[in-house]
Order: sequence, then structure tokens, then C-alpha cells
Amino acid sequence: MRVDACQTPALLLDAAALDRNLARMSEALPGPRLRPHVKAHKCTTLARRQAALGHEGFCCATVREMEGMAEAGLGKDLLLANEVIDPDRLALLAGLDARVTVAIDSPETLEAASKAGIEEVVIDVNVGLPRCGCPPEAAGGLAGAARRRGLGVRGVMGYEGHVVGLPDATKRQEGCAASMALLAAAHRDVGGELVSAGGTGTYACNDLATEIQAGSYALMDTAYGELDLGFEQAFWVLGSVISVSPGYTVLDCGLKALGMDHGAPSIPAAQVWFCSDEHITYAPEQPRRVGDRVRVHPAHVDPTIAYHEAFQVIEGAADGEPLDVGGAPIVDRWSIDLRGW
Amino acid sequence: MRVDACQTPALLLDAAALDRNLARMSEALPGPRLRPHVKAHKCTTLARRQAALGHEGFCCATVREMEGMAEAGLGKDLLLANEVIDPDRLALLAGLDARVTVAIDSPETLEAASKAGIEEVVIDVNVGLPRCGCPPEAAGGLAGAARRRGLGVRGVMGYEGHVVGLPDATKRQEGCAASMALLAAAHRDVGGELVSAGGTGTYACNDLATEIQAGSYALMDTAYGELDLGFEQAFWVLGSVISVSPGYTVLDCGLKALGMDHGAPSIPAAQVWFCSDEHITYAPEQPRRVGDRVRVHPAHVDPTIAYHEAFQVIEGAADGEPLDVGGAPIVDRWSIDLRGW
Repeated sequence: MRVDACQTPALLLDAAALDRNLARMSEALPGPRLRPHVKAHKCTTLARRQAALGHEGFCCATVREMEGMAEAGLGKDLLLANEVIDPDRLALLAGLDARVTVAIDSPETLEAASKAGIEEVVIDVNVGLPRCGCPPEAAGGLAGAARRRGLGVRGVMGYEGHVVGLPDATKRQEGCAASMALLAAAHRDVGGELVSAGGTGTYACNDLATEIQAGSYALMDTAYGELDLGFEQAFWVLGSVISVSPGYTVLDCGLKALGMDHGAPSIPAAQVWFCSDEHITYAPEQPRRVGDRVRVHPAHVDPTIAYHEAFQVIEGAADGEPLDVGGAPIVDRWSIDLRGW
Repeated sequence: MRVDACQTPALLLDAAALDRNLARMSEALPGPRLRPHVKAHKCTTLARRQAALGHEGFCCATVREMEGMAEAGLGKDLLLANEVIDPDRLALLAGLDARVTVAIDSPETLEAASKAGIEEVVIDVNVGLPRCGCPPEAAGGLAGAARRRGLGVRGVMGYEGHVVGLPDATKRQEGCAASMALLAAAHRDVGGELVSAGGTGTYACNDLATEIQAGSYALMDTAYGELDLGFEQAFWVLGSVISVSPGYTVLDCGLKALGMDHGAPSIPAAQVWFCSDEHITYAPEQPRRVGDRVRVHPAHVDPTIAYHEAFQVIEGAADGEPLDVGGAPIVDRWSIDLRGW
């Protein structure tokens, strides 16, 4: 099956571009310096490529991601970088055939983890993003309480999510440094070998973290693409033209195939007018015909992928070579097997 | 299992409120005057309740919805109100154990439907929304071409989607009337028994259509809620409080559990700050504790439900009676079995 006959909407993945992204990041952050976050791609096949490059510890955002990674044999060191208080879900985590570490940020989350038989935790520290995480000055006390209950405390984590998307690289670096100063203070009180932080936007400037929790770099999106981070767009939503009118053209992929929180998607050499549940109305510079396949660049990778069941994989072209997307054969199907919670 | 111990994120459905919405719409549009659109809820269990009220013809937006409805025994009269040009997908439709009608709006979509063995079509007419649909003056010619190829032409459809959400009821009514004048002209040229149009926002003012394609009315969302249409919010995204900080509180449901194209969700007696992939950061008026369950009102029903696997169903309260949500037992699980394409 060639791309220009592919069922749509689909997620199209360029394996060559993906591999270039993975290699670039591995060069910058070799081995355990990178803890790839699976929340962006939700795909154990893709995670296996990351592990093959020497990144054997992974970061997850949901219990389902932890479970799926363990079942896929990728459970050497799984960090749930999120708080869970549901006793059944925590018991499931405790029973996985994997090394499981969970984030805690309060006496309640410590209590729940301890009761469920979780053995190892990290202290989640608020470093400026108003979300989860205890105040830096409370981290040492929480770590002590955890150790008194017999839990291993592996260190701290803190996500500088309020600065990873700043367009100005200097401001991003300064914001990251300020956040990491808070995390360093907490780490002095907590101890442990892990200082887990960062993301695709700060992977190059976060010098404090012992490991970076980057996910988006593998596939990229238009929001991160604007930051000039050295990674390529390696996936698209593929749509088919189903209707052509004077002045505009309609694709068969819409809101249920696209994360919209960062705004509308982009289409090269075209202007996107609006998205409906199952459609994009847009104005291409060159006329399109009913049946044409069109690549749509989503604004936000994570919530886009979460709508889809699989990637349709093409080989891609060598770096700098032109890519005939329409004529490319679909060479593989990678299940997005970590969806849901 | 009570709601206050329910695994989260979840979709919580109030069956009593749903039934009141279904009954109200059935009173306004009895029997075949309503062709419920399944794209909003994607749930055959819910569709069966609509059929039980006398609405046995349904509207679908995707091939998967058509397939699932036929398999569920709800295929008495299925209209795919969308264009499809993929020969494999059209052949699948033609082979369903159901009465199948598909929308066409061009010689290309007619050709594809005819080749695949589709037997009945409607002519999709552009009535003002720049999306699919042929110009009204082209509808008669397309119908003639379809009949010459041996296809049954059941009539016309045209969606006044550019006016269904107008806040001013008078403007909504005027816009609807203008669109329906275009559709009436096309219908005079096309013939057939069906004039299929409308949605939840225009169900009460669209007098021309022989049947209204409404979907959102069953469960509602905050966008339609502002129009005062007489329907109740009958479902929510249920989240758990996982972290509490001075000034804000964090829930474990985020962008991957919520359609965001109509903006952020609402939480009663609280201010939503922002959503992340797996979190909502918000400020409740009354303090919340870690573990509390909280109901989140999504802005747009369709892309919210498309993220979820099932509804968790509570009985709900009689009209006007107070509802103790946290203490309510989960009485059923309805699979959202029409997801995907």
C-alpha cells in the first residue's frame, strides 16, 4: 500500500526522520542522561528504538503506560512522573514485573503508595509550574517520612514546564536555571541519585538534572518546531481531499484526529481556515483534487497521538534528500498501545 | 463502586438527565422527524435508547460508526452524512447488513459510490458553511447523473453549521431560514423524500427539513449550554484531586481527556487556570482534599468523548431533585464502541 492510497485519517510516521531525531538526542544526552518520556508517543515499538540506543529508563504519565511498558519487556526502570492516589491502581503498579518508582508530593500520596506496597519513590518538587509538586522546602521532610515507612527515596523530580516553550532561548535558559536552583536545594535535603527534570525545550540547557525527561523530540510538532531545537517533524496526520469548492478544499481529518489546545494545525503552502469534528477546511496555493492525500502538521503532538490507534510507517529519505511521500510504501504499522489511563 | 471511588479520568453519565433530554427532543421531533447523529456520543447503547423512542433512522459521520451501528442491529436506515472516496471503505459500507445511504457532492464521490455498489445516496448541498456540499444549483445535475447510473436518490442534505451556535436566537433563526431556502431550491431540482438538515442549535427553528440531524442534545456541553435550548448537561469528565497547593488544586484529567477546540472546560464554583496533558490546574472556591472526585464540564462534547473508552453510568435524580453525585453508585458501563474511523 502506498501513502497515496492509505486509509485516512491516519498518523504517518517517517522512520528515517525519527531515527535522526533519536540519534541527535542520544548524542547530546547519552545513555541514562536521557529518560525518554513515553507520554508523547504512547508506542512500545518506538520506545524499543529508544532503549536500543542505550536509554533503558523510561518516564510515564499514566498507570496504563507503566503497565504496557512492563508487559513489553521495557520495565528495567520505569518512573511514573505523576501522582496517583487510587489504591487499586497503585497495587497494580506494585505488582508489575518491572522496577517501579512513583512520584509523591504530599503525605496523602506517600500514604497511598506505602499502603499499596510501592517500594521506591521520588519527591516531586514544584519548581515554578503551578501543578503537582511540593514546595522545595517541604521535600526533605517528605523524604524523611517516606524513609521512615521503609520506602526507598531515589531522589527528586521537578518539571520546568512553564519555561520549556519560551520562544527566546536566553529566557528559556534563565528560567530553567532558576527552576533548577530550587530543585538543587530540594535535592540537598532529600538525597538520592536522581535529579529528574527537563523536557524537549530545555534538554540542551538543563545542566543540573542527572536525567532529562524528554518526549516530544522524537516526533515533534509545530509548537516545538518554532523553537529551532534541531529536531525534525517526523509524523503527520494524513488526510484525503473529499470535497473541492471555489476558494477552499476539505480534508477528512478534523478535531477528533488533532490535539487543538495549541491551536489549529498547519499545512505547507496552504492556509487552514477551520477544523470541524471530521474535517479541515483550508485553502491550498495549488489546486487539489478529490482523493489527494495531504499531510497535516499538528500543533501539539501528545493529544494528537492519543486519538489514534496506530502509526503508518514509511521508510523516509536520507538527510537532505527529497521525500516522495505520496509514492512511498507503508512498510509497517506500529500500534499506539499505551493509550488511555 | 461509588462515584467517589471511581477510577479517573472517567466519563460520568447521568442516565436520568439523559432520558429527560431524549424525551424533550422526542416531544419536539417525534419519530422520523429526528435522525439522531451518533457522532456526538459514539455509543450503540445510547443509540438504542434513541431508537426505542421511535427514532430508527440514524446519522453517522464515519465508516466505523456505520459499521458499528449495523453490527448492533441498528441499521434500519443509516445515513453517512459525509463524503467517502476510498474504494475499500465504500465496499465495506455496501456490504453492511443495513439500509445504507451515503452523501455525495461531486462527480468523483458519485463515481466512487457507484463503483463500490452503494445503492442509495443523498445530494449534499452547501447551504453556507464552507465545508462539503455542492452548490445548490449543481444539485439537480448531480442527482440526474446518479439516477442514470442506477442509484436511488433519496433527497438532499445540507448542514447550517455556521449558524447553529449563534448566541442570538433571532439571528440563528434567520440564518437557518436563509440556509434552508437554498436547500429547498436544491430539493426542487433533486426530488426525493428526504430533506435532512439541522442540529441541536436549530432543532426548534428549522421548519423546512423533513428530519433533523441532532446529536449534542443528548449529553450537551458548555458551548451549547449557553444557548438555553432546554437540554441539561448529562455527562462530565470525572477527575480526582491529586495535589493541593496554596491557591490552586490539581486534577488528574487533562488535554487527553477533553476536546479543547471550544476552549477550556468549566468547573462549578471554581476557576480553571489551565490544562496540561494529564492535569487541570484550577482554583476552587472551597478547599478540596487529595482524593476528592470533581466533575469537569467539557466545552465540546464530540472530541471529548472520542478520547474515552466508556461511560460510567449513574442513575441520576428526578427532575429538580438534588443529586448526591459522590455517593451515587455506578450502575452500568456503556462502551463507546464507535470510536475511530
